[in-house]
Amino acid sequence: MAFDAIDIIVTKRDRGELSAAQIDWVIDAYTSGSIADEQMSSLAMAILLNGMNRREIADWTAAMIRSGERMDWSMLDRPTADKHSTGGVGDKITLPLAPLVAACGAYVPQLSGRGLGHTGGTLDKLESIPGWRASLSNEEMLAVIRSAGAVVCAAGSGLAPADKKLYALRDVTGTVESIPLIASSIMSKKIAEGTGSLVLDVKVGSGAFMKNVADARELARTMVELGTDAGVRTVALLTAMDRPLGLKIGNALEVEESVEVLAGGGPADVVELTLTLAREMLEAAGVSGKDPAVALKDGSAMDAWRRMITAQGGDPDALLPRAAETMEITAPASGVLTTLDALGVGVAAWRLGAGRARKEDPVSFGAGIVLHAKPGDIVRQGQPLMTLHADETSRFERALESLDGAYEVTENTDPGLLPLVVERITA
Amino acid sequence: MAFDAIDIIVTKRDRGELSAAQIDWVIDAYTSGSIADEQMSSLAMAILLNGMNRREIADWTAAMIRSGERMDWSMLDRPTADKHSTGGVGDKITLPLAPLVAACGAYVPQLSGRGLGHTGGTLDKLESIPGWRASLSNEEMLAVIRSAGAVVCAAGSGLAPADKKLYALRDVTGTVESIPLIASSIMSKKIAEGTGSLVLDVKVGSGAFMKNVADARELARTMVELGTDAGVRTVALLTAMDRPLGLKIGNALEVEESVEVLAGGGPADVVELTLTLAREMLEAAGVSGKDPAVALKDGSAMDAWRRMITAQGGDPDALLPRAAETMEITAPASGVLTTLDALGVGVAAWRLGAGRARKEDPVSFGAGIVLHAKPGDIVRQGQPLMTLHADETSRFERALESLDGAYEVTENTDPGLLPLVVERITA
Repeated sequence: MAFDAIDIIVTKRDRGELSAAQIDWVIDAYTSGSIADEQMSSLAMAILLNGMNRREIADWTAAMIRSGERMDWSMLDRPTADKHSTGGVGDKITLPLAPLVAACGAYVPQLSGRGLGHTGGTLDKLESIPGWRASLSNEEMLAVIRSAGAVVCAAGSGLAPADKKLYALRDVTGTVESIPLIASSIMSKKIAEGTGSLVLDVKVGSGAFMKNVADARELARTMVELGTDAGVRTVALLTAMDRPLGLKIGNALEVEESVEVLAGGGPADVVELTLTLAREMLEAAGVSGKDPAVALKDGSAMDAWRRMITAQGGDPDALLPRAAETMEITAPASGVLTTLDALGVGVAAWRLGAGRARKEDPVSFGAGIVLHAKPGDIVRQGQPLMTLHADETSRFERALESLDGAYEVTENTDPGLLPLVVERITA
Repeated sequence: MAFDAIDIIVTKRDRGELSAAQIDWVIDAYTSGSIADEQMSSLAMAILLNGMNRREIADWTAAMIRSGERMDWSMLDRPTADKHSTGGVGDKITLPLAPLVAACGAYVPQLSGRGLGHTGGTLDKLESIPGWRASLSNEEMLAVIRSAGAVVCAAGSGLAPADKKLYALRDVTGTVESIPLIASSIMSKKIAEGTGSLVLDVKVGSGAFMKNVADARELARTMVELGTDAGVRTVALLTAMDRPLGLKIGNALEVEESVEVLAGGGPADVVELTLTLAREMLEAAGVSGKDPAVALKDGSAMDAWRRMITAQGGDPDALLPRAAETMEITAPASGVLTTLDALGVGVAAWRLGAGRARKEDPVSFGAGIVLHAKPGDIVRQGQPLMTLHADETSRFERALESLDGAYEVTENTDPGLLPLVVERITA
């Protein structure tokens, strides 16, 4: 059935409901190029301002999935589980989590992305491991899952190509910040990836895309509905991103911290969130084997990590890249570190070279920030608060600018932070 | 000063106010091509849904005027006056009006357009006169004004080029129906045209772009404010477009009716609206010479018409094109013609060949509709209500479809029409 692009734009502009057939047609026509970018962007703005209901969002997501291939893991002898995070500062959880869940009896087929802006990307982090390859064929992906239980790699171009094209358009037309469009973008890729169950880590706070709990809750609920409607067992946690996660921010630095967790150590918040998400994934997958806390202690999670890295060409024993230059920031007074703003720290790490401004830019593997104190900690004047790492000293000045006002030492003993897990949302 | 297109889109998306500098930059960047169509269309949708205030609309209009040349008639020895209609069915008023006002002592430099959709275009109508040319250089325009007192011709490409580009974009992106964008589009061209005073004929009713009085009033008020702020004496009339204007609809047919009016005859509504608009133009121009009613009777308006047509290459005595085929529609019952819907009649005339569906299409000069009764008239069953004119009989079927339900004969003696002049709006 043929529709007219203008009729569809006008329907949404005038607060009408788009039919499933209209949505199928518009996504298909946009992917094939018969709807112009300027038509899709005015439709995206109308959707951003006037919204879509649950049925429209489900149809929009289904149409984006149908624009490409849908992977199938039904030949595997164990249930599949995946996790998706909406992105935060210091969020390296996928790295310990995927092998940990594999060690506990579920398969983890995770398609991941690269960083853009102040939040890091899982592939960038793993690529700091010498030899590790992000791009795998479907056959290679299957082989890595079978040998290691988990695979983390780049999504091929055949998966939800409509989303790829639409996301690039939204990025330059001021139409990113729409919950229906964000939810359908994430979920079209995750559903096309073929996982049987999915745990969503929706970050909330200054360093996250969602700055407040209400928006994060709406996004989480929309995505849980989408997953459930598509037959994927889906649960979401809202988790804190008002301060950085863990003590290390940056590509190789976050691999280091992940290996500490897999070795049974690591910062308390990273360990707690890794275990919480692992339990959610195992429950969603219906697997009741090993306790994840045991798998961290007995070395089985570390074994899975080493197999996973090796199977993708990486050397788990190789030295990781280090930045040539460092600079220490010390406490300006004695008292309690009451503020350590995730956004300020994330932008500083980005400016140090850990992130990229444009898709084409390279990242520095060694750049980033190591924290020596977290909010709530008592500090003495002159004590190191953090160490900045960069390949060139010229990076420090702009990083310091974004740290201006991002940390504060006061007499106040209650920093008023969000709890690590704010809320749990199920279908 | 350089801005970022996305920042500007996001400002308006989030209901913010655009600064004069932002508006200047965005119009300039769009005209020069450094802002992409997909960015301008998402901004246009955000403007359509979130609006612009008086200051923003004035700055937007000023920026579009500055994108091209602004004409100057200060070398003339009489005041200039122009009229703009928002378009309706059977609206041929410019044809008798321009020479009439010239005959009463003001100069009329009118840049006009072609028809698109169910409303006709003044240039299409005049082009049905053998030899008449719509395209004039600025020097030719000046010569026609000096010899005839009035000139009606096509706008050159140098006038408000930003508006030309933006209008074409809005046409395909569902962003036409925005009062700030409609008002600034019309007024940027009219102000750039250089007229000293301007009377706006804002049509209201089924056959008009504005379907109700509230929308028409808002558009009129916005345009009067824009004209006034730009130093053009501006007044607006809201006039009825719930039924067609006059008895003839179509290109050559409307020239015929206009010549009847200039000869002292013609339908009462066309004569009344022509005189009302002429008096408004003369008052706005500050000219108190001849009474327009006298100029219609004594032949001076007709003389100005003949000079104007001749000066643009036309032969005022030539036979006008006639359509080869006609079809009569008769009254289905005896009673009062209570409905004669402007939209239905306009679409029928368009389908008969009087209008075009795409900018590139030709129009049929002879096609159209001649009415034999107007709403409120008593008719007998079987009496002719209208005659359809087309170049091919195959056109009649689809025209009849759009007339289905567009006319109605009942016992009701009050058709409940809008008054011819609904409202007058001044600064």
